Amino acid sequence: MTSRRIIEESAAPGARQRPLLCTPLVGRTARAVEEELEVVLPKGPDLLEWRVDCFEAIALTAEVLALGRVIRARAGDLPLIFTRRSTREGGEPIPLDEAGVLDLYQAVGRAGLADYLDQELSSGPADLARARAISREVGAGLIASFHDFQRTPTVDELFARLEAASRAGADVAKVAAMARSPEDVLTLLSATLRGRRELGLPLITMSMGPYGSLTRLFGWAFGSSVSFAVGAGSSAPGQLPIETLRRINEILTGALLGEVP
Amino acid sequence: MTSRRIIEESAAPGARQRPLLCTPLVGRTARAVEEELEVVLPKGPDLLEWRVDCFEAIALTAEVLALGRVIRARAGDLPLIFTRRSTREGGEPIPLDEAGVLDLYQAVGRAGLADYLDQELSSGPADLARARAISREVGAGLIASFHDFQRTPTVDELFARLEAASRAGADVAKVAAMARSPEDVLTLLSATLRGRRELGLPLITMSMGPYGSLTRLFGWAFGSSVSFAVGAGSSAPGQLPIETLRRINEILTGALLGEVP
Repeated sequence: MTSRRIIEESAAPGARQRPLLCTPLVGRTARAVEEELEVVLPKGPDLLEWRVDCFEAIALTAEVLALGRVIRARAGDLPLIFTRRSTREGGEPIPLDEAGVLDLYQAVGRAGLADYLDQELSSGPADLARARAISREVGAGLIASFHDFQRTPTVDELFARLEAASRAGADVAKVAAMARSPEDVLTLLSATLRGRRELGLPLITMSMGPYGSLTRLFGWAFGSSVSFAVGAGSSAPGQLPIETLRRINEILTGALLGEVP
Repeated sequence: MTSRRIIEESAAPGARQRPLLCTPLVGRTARAVEEELEVVLPKGPDLLEWRVDCFEAIALTAEVLALGRVIRARAGDLPLIFTRRSTREGGEPIPLDEAGVLDLYQAVGRAGLADYLDQELSSGPADLARARAISREVGAGLIASFHDFQRTPTVDELFARLEAASRAGADVAKVAAMARSPEDVLTLLSATLRGRRELGLPLITMSMGPYGSLTRLFGWAFGSSVSFAVGAGSSAPGQLPIETLRRINEILTGALLGEVP
């Protein structure tokens, strides 16, 4: 199996600062996801995230694998993040329990259909440890994630989440928090910088909502390796179109700093 | 005399969030400034700042007034900031003392050639009071400014400068500080937000240097009303071309928040 560990590469010392653009796939049916791929792929994302909680046949492993193979075939060498987002953290209701989700992660991973698996920190130590074991077994990266759609915690609280991801052995730590003010945006960016200074792993961070949109454009300058951008459908509030992000990045090439913090 | 108080208007409650773009004129001779105007004016800045300390004939009031009239005629209704930047704060050496500079401010103001006068906080209470009196007499706005080309002070220190400008009766408070890290950028933006929350006047703030360039793009989202952009020549480190700022603003129209903080 080929592993496409683009996130770790982009955050390595000496790497050129630029945000990887990830577009989510949020279709409810195989047909819808295939249509999303037709729209999204020509826009040239750096990664795809399949939000499998949006897929209505999530409980039918064979259907998930079949669609996973379609995505893999269409996406070619594009790295794939496989994500079940829980309802606690902004995802869709699904008929699987946590053990069932991890069984699905294992099946998808073994089939070579995921380069990264996203597991929420809130799932607890046992499930996190199992996700870590599965991802190692199948050669995928583990993204340990935290989302707060209501508010932005303090810098210390946000940093504690990143640290918890690191302690859980994650390859990448992800934190997303709703910004209710411009101050919240600075809080999220401060925690990101502190995480980059003090922890040894790549980060994906963003403020959600309209105030937070700026972090989707410039979080990379504060240490976030990936920005989620709308290809066909949005998966969180404040996401900007991938075309907007790409055009701004092109304009700024050379105008700003060259190395990751 | 017509006053063009565009900065206060842009910062009024309910105003649409957008940065006013100001291009500096830094020519050493009348010819050089006229050439700058030919390059700069077609680029459509919102304001012009004449950095008169760059003008080699600054000690000859008649020559300053003559060139000021050329600038005013060419600029039409474009608001003009008249600025002598001291060597302490990044300006050029000049043969005038502080009293001579304020005499020049008065002459230029009385001739109707300045919509704003920039006076440094470090000039001290007496000179600041005289600048305030002159600007009131001639109907111009007073920008009280502070620049640190070495480092970024703390949030409290930066806020204290903004507060001092407010206490001195300035119409606009300006603070520029060198960013040596991404953390410095967040410090400058935090002080800007606090200034907008707690003080009653428009602010112009920026981080200088390569790390600081982001504040020239997005300081407006944190309460800075004006961004200095290169039209023909740069007047401080980290300034971006006006075309870059304008294109990014156009792309983002509608994608981000609509009102000033």
